[in-house]
Amino acid sequence: MSEPLLQPGERLDDLIIGGMKLIQHPEEFCFSLDAVLLAQFATVRRDARVIDLGTGTGVVALLVAQRGAAHVTGLEISPVMAERASRSVVYNQLQERVQIMAGDLRDIRQLQPAGEFDLVVSNPPYRPVQGGYISPNDLVARARHEVTANLQDVVAAAAYLVKYRGRFAMVHLPERLSEIMNAMQAHGLEPKRLQLVQAGPSRKPNMALIEGIRGAKPGLDVLPALHVYQPDGSYSPEIQAYYAGW
Amino acid sequence: MSEPLLQPGERLDDLIIGGMKLIQHPEEFCFSLDAVLLAQFATVRRDARVIDLGTGTGVVALLVAQRGAAHVTGLEISPVMAERASRSVVYNQLQERVQIMAGDLRDIRQLQPAGEFDLVVSNPPYRPVQGGYISPNDLVARARHEVTANLQDVVAAAAYLVKYRGRFAMVHLPERLSEIMNAMQAHGLEPKRLQLVQAGPSRKPNMALIEGIRGAKPGLDVLPALHVYQPDGSYSPEIQAYYAGW
Repeated sequence: MSEPLLQPGERLDDLIIGGMKLIQHPEEFCFSLDAVLLAQFATVRRDARVIDLGTGTGVVALLVAQRGAAHVTGLEISPVMAERASRSVVYNQLQERVQIMAGDLRDIRQLQPAGEFDLVVSNPPYRPVQGGYISPNDLVARARHEVTANLQDVVAAAAYLVKYRGRFAMVHLPERLSEIMNAMQAHGLEPKRLQLVQAGPSRKPNMALIEGIRGAKPGLDVLPALHVYQPDGSYSPEIQAYYAGW
Repeated sequence: MSEPLLQPGERLDDLIIGGMKLIQHPEEFCFSLDAVLLAQFATVRRDARVIDLGTGTGVVALLVAQRGAAHVTGLEISPVMAERASRSVVYNQLQERVQIMAGDLRDIRQLQPAGEFDLVVSNPPYRPVQGGYISPNDLVARARHEVTANLQDVVAAAAYLVKYRGRFAMVHLPERLSEIMNAMQAHGLEPKRLQLVQAGPSRKPNMALIEGIRGAKPGLDVLPALHVYQPDGSYSPEIQAYYAGW
C-alpha cells in the first residue's frame, strides 16, 4: 500500500497553471499571487540552474520549472514545509528537475557551493519582527515576518549563490525598496529591472518585483506598473494573460 | 529710462500657474513639465526656508515660492542663467522671498551654512557625460548632462544644506533610481516618498519624483504612478488638477 498523498489537514490545490497542483495546509501558510508574479517576472532561461530561497509550499520552484528551467532547488527552513513541498514535486512528476532541501539560508555556505546558480529567486517574509503582532502559529509567522532570515540574509545568500552575470529576482513590499536596492548594491547585485504591482489605476503599489544582475553596471529598467484587477473586481487582462501564457 | 525686461533672443513665457511668467531663451534650455511636477510633489511648508540646486530659469524656485515657502534661494552655476532668473523673480514681484545666487553647488560649503534649510529641491541634469552626444551649446549641455555637478554632488550638497528632519526632493530618471536611493542613504537622506510618472497606462515611467528626510528611519511611501496624458493626447485629470490646484 503506497503512502497517502495528503496528510491530515492538507488539501490539494489547483495552481491553474500547466495543470499543476500544490499540497497546502489551509491553517498554515498558503501561496498567494505574489509567488505567481515572481515566477513570471524572473528571467528564466531554458538551461538555467535556479535556487528558490524560502520555498515554503514549493510554489515558486514548481512554477520556475514549468517555465523551462533545467534544474530548480527549493531551500526551506521548516522540515514540515520542505517535506510537504517534496510531495508536491512528486505529485507533479517534476522530481527529476526540482529538488527540495531543508535548511537555513543563513547557513548557505555549508549547504551550497558559491557562484553556481544562473538565477536565485525569493518570496521572503516581508515584515520586520518589530512590525506588529507575530502569529502564534510558527509556520505562518515565519512566512510573513523576518523571524528567521531577514532581508539582508536573503540578499547575502543570493549574492553568494549566483554566478557572475547571473540574476536575483525577488518580490517584496514597495515600502522596503530603498533597503532592498541598497542591500543589493552592497552585495554586488545591481538592480536592473523593477515592476510595481497595484490593485488598479490610482491605487498605491502593494508589491514590488525586482531583479538584479551580479556585476552589472547601474541602470534600472522600470516597467509599467502592473494592475491586478479591473473595476468589476475580475483580474485585469495582464493577469489573465499571465495565467494563459504558461 | 528703465532697463528693458527682455534681452535679445529672450521671450516671456506664461507659467499658467498663479499668473506667473518666466523669461526664457528658446535657443537655450527651457523648463519642462518635470519642474512643475517637482514643485508640486515636494512637501512645502508655509514657513519653510528652501534652496533649489541648479535653478536654471528659476522656475522651480518661483513655483515653490508660489506654494507658500517663506524664502527660496535658487543656486545656479551659469551667471547668464542666474541673471535671467533674477529678472523673472523681479517681474513676478517675488524679490522679497526669492533670491537667485550664482555659484557652483560643488562649492556649497563656501556658499551657505550647514543645516539651515527645511527643504532642498533639485531638477538636476539627468544623464552622465559618457551617455551620448553633448550639445555644443554649453547651457543646454549643462542642463541635460552632468557636465559640472553629478548626482553624487547634488545629493552631497543637499545633505549638507538640510536641517535634521528636513527634506530633499528631486526629479530624475527612473533608470537611475538605484543610484539615487543609494546616494541618498549614504548621505543620511532616507528615501520616504516616491512617485513614478508615465505618459499613460501601460507606458514605462520616464520620470521619478523622490523625497527623502534627513535622519528618518527606512520606509518608503510609493504613490500611485502619475499618468500625464489621456488617450486623446490631452493632459490627464491629475495633471489638470495640478495646474488648477495652485
